[in-house]
Amino acid sequence: MIKADGESVLFAVDLAGTLLFAVEGGSAATSGGLDLLGVLVLAFATALGGGIVRDLLIGAVPPASLRDWRYAALAFLGGFLFFSLHRYAAGISPWVVLILDAAGLSLFAIAGTEKALLYKMPAFVAILLGTITAVGGGVLRDIFLSRVPRLLQSDIYATAAIIGSAVMILSGKIGLSPRWAAISGGVTCFTLRVLSLWFHWNLPRVGA
Amino acid sequence: MIKADGESVLFAVDLAGTLLFAVEGGSAATSGGLDLLGVLVLAFATALGGGIVRDLLIGAVPPASLRDWRYAALAFLGGFLFFSLHRYAAGISPWVVLILDAAGLSLFAIAGTEKALLYKMPAFVAILLGTITAVGGGVLRDIFLSRVPRLLQSDIYATAAIIGSAVMILSGKIGLSPRWAAISGGVTCFTLRVLSLWFHWNLPRVGA
Amino acid sequence: MIKADGESVLFAVDLAGTLLFAVEGGSAATSGGLDLLGVLVLAFATALGGGIVRDLLIGAVPPASLRDWRYAALAFLGGFLFFSLHRYAAGISPWVVLILDAAGLSLFAIAGTEKALLYKMPAFVAILLGTITAVGGGVLRDIFLSRVPRLLQSDIYATAAIIGSAVMILSGKIGLSPRWAAISGGVTCFTLRVLSLWFHWNLPRVGA
Repeated sequence: MIKADGESVLFAVDLAGTLLFAVEGGSAATSGGLDLLGVLVLAFATALGGGIVRDLLIGAVPPASLRDWRYAALAFLGGFLFFSLHRYAAGISPWVVLILDAAGLSLFAIAGTEKALLYKMPAFVAILLGTITAVGGGVLRDIFLSRVPRLLQSDIYATAAIIGSAVMILSGKIGLSPRWAAISGGVTCFTLRVLSLWFHWNLPRVGA
Repeated sequence: MIKADGESVLFAVDLAGTLLFAVEGGSAATSGGLDLLGVLVLAFATALGGGIVRDLLIGAVPPASLRDWRYAALAFLGGFLFFSLHRYAAGISPWVVLILDAAGLSLFAIAGTEKALLYKMPAFVAILLGTITAVGGGVLRDIFLSRVPRLLQSDIYATAAIIGSAVMILSGKIGLSPRWAAISGGVTCFTLRVLSLWFHWNLPRVGA
Repeated sequence: MIKADGESVLFAVDLAGTLLFAVEGGSAATSGGLDLLGVLVLAFATALGGGIVRDLLIGAVPPASLRDWRYAALAFLGGFLFFSLHRYAAGISPWVVLILDAAGLSLFAIAGTEKALLYKMPAFVAILLGTITAVGGGVLRDIFLSRVPRLLQSDIYATAAIIGSAVMILSGKIGLSPRWAAISGGVTCFTLRVLSLWFHWNLPRVGA
């Protein structure tokens, strides 16, 4: 276990994002009529799927989320919490959910980009892997639910992750410390996502 | 090629499960209206998909089922057999199919857990990988057929694999030989699956 | 970077196939009502998904298409071109599209087989990997669009790739140079695909 600064920040950020996304995966599974096992599997896939795909692509096997039991435990916990407490979830404002999701998106985009840079990937690939980390779990969740991934249809979602990851890498190249580069990328991703929701920004579409 | 005892038991068990699951994959493809190629692809995916995902996750590449042509040959044979002989399949009692499937599930859960242990995975991860080996092929089959994986919706299925794998690992920890640990895990998984079918056990579900 | 002859032919062939398949992925995404991001993702998945799966299976990580930015750039370019110019695409004869697609299929089947042979895979596995390279992207595209992969339902498509790849390997075994073996395999795949379209050849199907 490397105990460098970047590594431990990465770990804390990863755990926070994992719990957030697991709750969302559990929520999608519950709406889709799945049973408790389905809820746990979708919590796991949503929370850890993006990072597992990233780790497979850079050859970091077994993936981090299988080497350290705390990831899987948090993912299952998030799914179980939603399953047990979903009655109370109905009262929560949709904006709270959207803002927490934007936070999770930003945390995962940063963590994914940082890991890709630790593995000496070139900038272009690091942006791609940061984005896959951020949105891959949601894509897997939608595939399990047999629906076209939401993020391919509308909204500034993966786009916010791409731009946040790019800002993080550019900030590093112009001399910011890794920590401040990560913060500037994360804030960019989060702000862009929230603004796009507020102002109903969408990407162009044929015939729309 | 290691010729240890565990390895050769693993191999025989894997081949038996492969043929069983391939026939089932061929059956699902036929019901879904696929052509002969679709039947062979689904036989392959159902029979070998779980083990391939396991091998990718532990970094055992190329996966065992690609290194040894007998796996793929058996998978294609199973699909082809069903395709040629499906007329005679209609007369088979559904209970025979369910019990053979429970046997396949148990064989794959054991084989997957054993391989994870051979690769020095911690207990928690070995249970996860045993379960992925057992149910991953069925999940891939359902994704190819564009439907929500059955095992996420109801039934004690993956749950039986999880518990069987856990029993196998616990039996090993309390001192049983690898062979007896595998047998106790497999019998647990099989019994649990068959009992759950007989008594219509299901996992809890929201709103159900 | 190996600069052998086979390697550079492989590279040129890969790039041509990538652009062709990316345009097709963009076309499918546009028909499916996806937005610009969805078009780019499907162009990427269709063009590079098969090769990425092949590289994961043979342990060539990070996959070639992530190590060299030109693959991804071409894939995104192909998607963007279709998105911008789709108005002009309506006038193109479907036969032009089918023949270009048959060319892409043949190029990828050859490139995939050649890479598998470079990695010392046995003949049987090289055929499987050549076919996965050729059709894997289209399967991923259909999974993203939440539909049963077309190639599993009818048509001589993957079958042409299988036979083309087998012819390439046999030609090598009987003493043809790698270049002529590749050409004979590619021509076989292409001819078979085009003939099957012209004469409406299909694989057998249960109940059809």
